[in-house]
Amino acid sequence: MDFAAFMETERRRVDAYLEDVLPPAGHPPVELHEAIRYTVFAGGKRVRPIMTVVACGALGGDVDACLPGAAAIEMIHVSSLIHDDLPCMDDSDTRRGKPSCHMKFGESTAVLAGDWLLVYPFEVIGRGAEDGLYPPQVAAKICATIARGVCTSGIVAGQVLDLDAESREISGDELRRIHELKTAALMEACARVGAAVAQAPPDLTETVAHSARALGLCFQVVDDILDVIGDAKVLGKPTGADSEKDKNTYVSLYGLDTARQMARDLADEATKALEPLPPSPWLERSRELIDYIVSRTS
Amino acid sequence: MDFAAFMETERRRVDAYLEDVLPPAGHPPVELHEAIRYTVFAGGKRVRPIMTVVACGALGGDVDACLPGAAAIEMIHVSSLIHDDLPCMDDSDTRRGKPSCHMKFGESTAVLAGDWLLVYPFEVIGRGAEDGLYPPQVAAKICATIARGVCTSGIVAGQVLDLDAESREISGDELRRIHELKTAALMEACARVGAAVAQAPPDLTETVAHSARALGLCFQVVDDILDVIGDAKVLGKPTGADSEKDKNTYVSLYGLDTARQMARDLADEATKALEPLPPSPWLERSRELIDYIVSRTS
Repeated sequence: MDFAAFMETERRRVDAYLEDVLPPAGHPPVELHEAIRYTVFAGGKRVRPIMTVVACGALGGDVDACLPGAAAIEMIHVSSLIHDDLPCMDDSDTRRGKPSCHMKFGESTAVLAGDWLLVYPFEVIGRGAEDGLYPPQVAAKICATIARGVCTSGIVAGQVLDLDAESREISGDELRRIHELKTAALMEACARVGAAVAQAPPDLTETVAHSARALGLCFQVVDDILDVIGDAKVLGKPTGADSEKDKNTYVSLYGLDTARQMARDLADEATKALEPLPPSPWLERSRELIDYIVSRTS
Repeated sequence: MDFAAFMETERRRVDAYLEDVLPPAGHPPVELHEAIRYTVFAGGKRVRPIMTVVACGALGGDVDACLPGAAAIEMIHVSSLIHDDLPCMDDSDTRRGKPSCHMKFGESTAVLAGDWLLVYPFEVIGRGAEDGLYPPQVAAKICATIARGVCTSGIVAGQVLDLDAESREISGDELRRIHELKTAALMEACARVGAAVAQAPPDLTETVAHSARALGLCFQVVDDILDVIGDAKVLGKPTGADSEKDKNTYVSLYGLDTARQMARDLADEATKALEPLPPSPWLERSRELIDYIVSRTS
């Protein structure tokens, strides 16, 4: 199976699992669950859950057992998109080519759908242990790992710094810090959750965490590049949005060529970090995922 | 020790624990953690953590071991206050006699502080297991229990229904449903978390859960009554706010006398539900807590 087919298969598996654990359409309160399902099934590529799966597989774990943690991280990611789009935050009317959650369902429902998607993951993770997918100490570890990727060292802190940096010049170090928190921390959590489910030893856990951290930063640099050179139709969002908002990006700070080189360097770092892992088809998929992210066009 | 002194001692114990687990003042991003600490330490009575503690004690559990779960629920409660006060929700400028979080720190920081307070609890609960306060399966159970009190059967669903019911006439059944979700569900979670830490058998878990559910509804009926007859100074918030906003309350629907009787009936139900428990000083505290809630003036 080539990598594109693998991504598609995994995407479908994650979507089927999300479909399984989310309350069905029509569940009361109807509007709340509609807003949740609208945003969760808006066509995400499921990069984060797939990072969790390949990390778990490369460490010899049961990839089916990491679905609750993988889906949990995706839900939290979707929550952050909903809240980031709010008028008081980035004020984005569209997301993935469709009206953003608050444009479609109103601001209060969007805030609450985001809240729901921040907390429900922890029920899903707990239920995974009740269903015997992993021992309860793994569930406790997954909860703590994901929470770290969200709070003081994660996406919430990153969004605070990002808003604070709007329309003022910042250094490369500051920009890196923002993206470490806003993007790389949750991607690192993906790898750590995969490692927790695989019950990997600490040194190999750090190995995949390091790779995922570099890949997370790489993902963000590529995002900044695509905002400048990407095709709006392929991306599903208007390009040029960052420069219009005077946002600090890798491109605005370093120029296009250097940003491209930085993305390649980070991808190399992510690949190299995986060297201590034993060869396996999953390790191969991990490498392909890195290539996919650094060369993606959407 | 009389009950007032007991409440004060427990409140201090919960506050000391919260002080211990929250990032210190000045921790970056400074504004985020300031907003969190401002709202967490705004003078809450800590009724929910104390409900957790007395349930755990009455079931023979180690009350120190339930502090992470008790503090987790309080943080989630505080998060719901921050988000409920937002302009797109109840649009409240003050809370406990002080500017609400978004008035003091701006809307985006308030949304993010609320997000932080929804997720950090799960790190605290996981850490409780790592520290050996309870076995990991108890941590997994606490996570799932709290998540249920927040999502589709909890405060988030309750707030959706509450906003939807604004300025339209609703039935007594609808009002009860709103408050079951918005108030009673998280209070029921308090009792269930206490029971989980005590590793109580299912029948006794349901006993304290039933009592807490009735007490949660009682708490809300009393809230509605205090909005009409309370002393704004003692309450720390303006009275008459509900009727000004045309809010459906137990008083607007049933009148003051019937609402008072309903509060007493719910308190009786909460007390009666505890009958299967063996006599103990903690059971006595549980009963006193019910008396305190039904007769409170703030």
